[in-house]
Amino acid sequence: MASIVLLSVKQTAQTKAKRCLGSRLKGLAGAGGPSATFLPEREWLSKGLNLRFMSHGTAGRSAAGTTRRGALAFSGAAAVAAAAVVGFLANANHFQRAEMATTIPQKAKKKKEEEEEEGDIAQRCRGFMSVPVTDISVLEKRKDEMSTKMEMLIMETQAEFCKALEEVDGGTFKVDKWQRKEGGGGISCVMQDGKVFEKAGVNVSVVFGYLTEEAAKQMRSRGKVLKGKDGKLPFCAMGVSSVIHPKNPHIPTVHFNYRYFEIEEEDGSKQWWFGGGTDLTPVYIDREDAFLFHNTLKEACDKHHPKYYADFKKWCDRYFYVRHRGETRGIGGIFFDDLDSPNQEEVFNFIKSCARTVVPCYLPIVKKHLNDSFTQEEKDWQQVRRGRYVEFNLVYDRGVKFGLATPGSRIESILMSLPLTARWEYMHEPGKGSREAEMLEVLRNPKEWV
Amino acid sequence: MASIVLLSVKQTAQTKAKRCLGSRLKGLAGAGGPSATFLPEREWLSKGLNLRFMSHGTAGRSAAGTTRRGALAFSGAAAVAAAAVVGFLANANHFQRAEMATTIPQKAKKKKEEEEEEGDIAQRCRGFMSVPVTDISVLEKRKDEMSTKMEMLIMETQAEFCKALEEVDGGTFKVDKWQRKEGGGGISCVMQDGKVFEKAGVNVSVVFGYLTEEAAKQMRSRGKVLKGKDGKLPFCAMGVSSVIHPKNPHIPTVHFNYRYFEIEEEDGSKQWWFGGGTDLTPVYIDREDAFLFHNTLKEACDKHHPKYYADFKKWCDRYFYVRHRGETRGIGGIFFDDLDSPNQEEVFNFIKSCARTVVPCYLPIVKKHLNDSFTQEEKDWQQVRRGRYVEFNLVYDRGVKFGLATPGSRIESILMSLPLTARWEYMHEPGKGSREAEMLEVLRNPKEWV
Repeated sequence: MASIVLLSVKQTAQTKAKRCLGSRLKGLAGAGGPSATFLPEREWLSKGLNLRFMSHGTAGRSAAGTTRRGALAFSGAAAVAAAAVVGFLANANHFQRAEMATTIPQKAKKKKEEEEEEGDIAQRCRGFMSVPVTDISVLEKRKDEMSTKMEMLIMETQAEFCKALEEVDGGTFKVDKWQRKEGGGGISCVMQDGKVFEKAGVNVSVVFGYLTEEAAKQMRSRGKVLKGKDGKLPFCAMGVSSVIHPKNPHIPTVHFNYRYFEIEEEDGSKQWWFGGGTDLTPVYIDREDAFLFHNTLKEACDKHHPKYYADFKKWCDRYFYVRHRGETRGIGGIFFDDLDSPNQEEVFNFIKSCARTVVPCYLPIVKKHLNDSFTQEEKDWQQVRRGRYVEFNLVYDRGVKFGLATPGSRIESILMSLPLTARWEYMHEPGKGSREAEMLEVLRNPKEWV
Repeated sequence: MASIVLLSVKQTAQTKAKRCLGSRLKGLAGAGGPSATFLPEREWLSKGLNLRFMSHGTAGRSAAGTTRRGALAFSGAAAVAAAAVVGFLANANHFQRAEMATTIPQKAKKKKEEEEEEGDIAQRCRGFMSVPVTDISVLEKRKDEMSTKMEMLIMETQAEFCKALEEVDGGTFKVDKWQRKEGGGGISCVMQDGKVFEKAGVNVSVVFGYLTEEAAKQMRSRGKVLKGKDGKLPFCAMGVSSVIHPKNPHIPTVHFNYRYFEIEEEDGSKQWWFGGGTDLTPVYIDREDAFLFHNTLKEACDKHHPKYYADFKKWCDRYFYVRHRGETRGIGGIFFDDLDSPNQEEVFNFIKSCARTVVPCYLPIVKKHLNDSFTQEEKDWQQVRRGRYVEFNLVYDRGVKFGLATPGSRIESILMSLPLTARWEYMHEPGKGSREAEMLEVLRNPKEWV
């Protein structure tokens, strides 16, 4: 997989990134150059096409078929991770093997799918939840650029995950395509008050414009000082992020986010980096679920670097720490930021492997607990844990803080990560030896699950 | 009232503040001087006396009786404010006059109560929700110091407000007396899931120790630079704060906070200031309630400075602004900080007037709507507004941010302001012309209510 992608690289990553950013901003500036690049998208919007792209009637069904194939293509490429899940399944009777088997690639299929992936951009777009943020003709023209590859990946991840959730819930995602006045836009998919999910949000955003040096510094977790022209730095940021809050307290909340940044310094040099992660927030500990989740991530990491899983697991526990409570938000997963080595293609391939684990990491767990019964006490404990989730997101999460402080942000998309309902009980402390106390113990002392 | 207090002043405020802070910190240092000052409190705690002070059996009933008088003493002193409410009542048939009448002072009673207030500290303490944070014998020894006067005021305000809420709800506050390892402590009173109140918290804290120069700077809203000895500044901070979330969506949420700070600089000079405010967060607009609330505050302000109400009303609208939503948290009230002129006694008298409005500002509104019926839609809208309340408190509130970032803070007391339940609906937008839309309109464009 990685080698095929690498074969198509004709320019250095540096040159490509520069070209991409330059042309985006030329479009943004408007008067400074031809802004036609961005017109087709505005035309679609003005025609009211901000609902799901080709999602009705026969065309809709056919598009869905394409997407299902697209989803398999992604799972197929994450063959090692999927195989690990299968290996795990040998010892895990509770998971529905038949469901999991759909994620295992077959050789012939894989080749065809890889061709598809390298193939027609317009055709791949048909399986998305909406037309992409960037005009398809622009994506086609720049198909070898990292920004295009990443935009296609995040759109595919969104579609794959949404379809899997819709299938298990029976509900339908509401799709909002929105524009950011300062440059770019996004596609927010939200399913609220479904049969299985209380609130499920899967968001894609592709934004660009100018950052102040201070804001640029804040964007990098290592706080690198960046020098802009007249203090301003052209930037481009894109990512897919999702938070799923189920109704049943025995089904955990999941969150993932994979993102790509480009910033241009005064001397024309480019800074680019990737970040991301997937983490699980159960209400009650299920060691089998925890193993499946972490092991799926570990296998994806191991394909790229033997230290990735251990390092990014630690980073995750550190990042999702609710300091004032002295507990982590959940049982972690992986988290990383500022990833810019060994080279752009290799990091992208790692991101791709991660993005392809979102379905096999989570859906087997959802399906396993779909019909678990629960008590009012268990529901109340879920609501208390939801309160802690809100505390982390509003007090510590860098993405939320950055979003709330950035003019022109789409607040509804940033805060769609908040649960539909939450609860704060004064001095809540679970009884000794209870399953709630067991959960707290794990949150206070993060464990190794693999 | 003010003149009586002034007559008892034998030293300058400056000298007294210095003495107070010095002796507190001597106690804290322990090895540096006799720490006996703080022993009695620790003894009480070790005997498990961290529940309500004298609240059981005959003694309890007698203590409650004393408190009821204490509460009246306070309402009595706020005679002008109360009179304003009465004046308002002439035009406001909906409010229960009989209930309000209990807050109107009678001349003879007033004199007796004033004597009581100037009288025995130990006797006044009997009406409190708990023994005060500072040992009664220490308070008696330093009865003319501002820190003592303020500690007595915040304890009395807590008791008065709690008793009024208990009376209307029928429930009982859970009283927690807690110590802060770094110096000081507090008394948290919480009533949860009552008949009328979903969550009611009334908190007193009296803390002292050392601040870094950076932390000290953050404590003052004007960001004054303060010079400490070896970068450390001895400080003392105390206040009463409360948030009441009722069950019925037609009863608004109320919040108040009155606080006092002392900081000692390197050269031994003292900085002191007061801050505070009371604000209302209705779920639906009721103009009569809004007028009563603001007018009660205005009358208290007008006794001290003709510009206070207008200035502090504006400050309140500015402070309780949820920037990312473009709306205020509620319909405001008053808010001020860094108040240190014309002199310590006069500012304290203003704070006293404000503290004495908390019952007449809120209880008539609670009683008016006690039996209002409501629909599920109205309850849902309340829950959505609660979500915004959480957003303000966790993202913007300086007190919460300072508390969460301060080691040794009592998190449960800081976050008791969060509602028992809250809701986040994606893209919630009330229908045009609805009462929910009317509420939003007011939050987006703050109004004058008096």
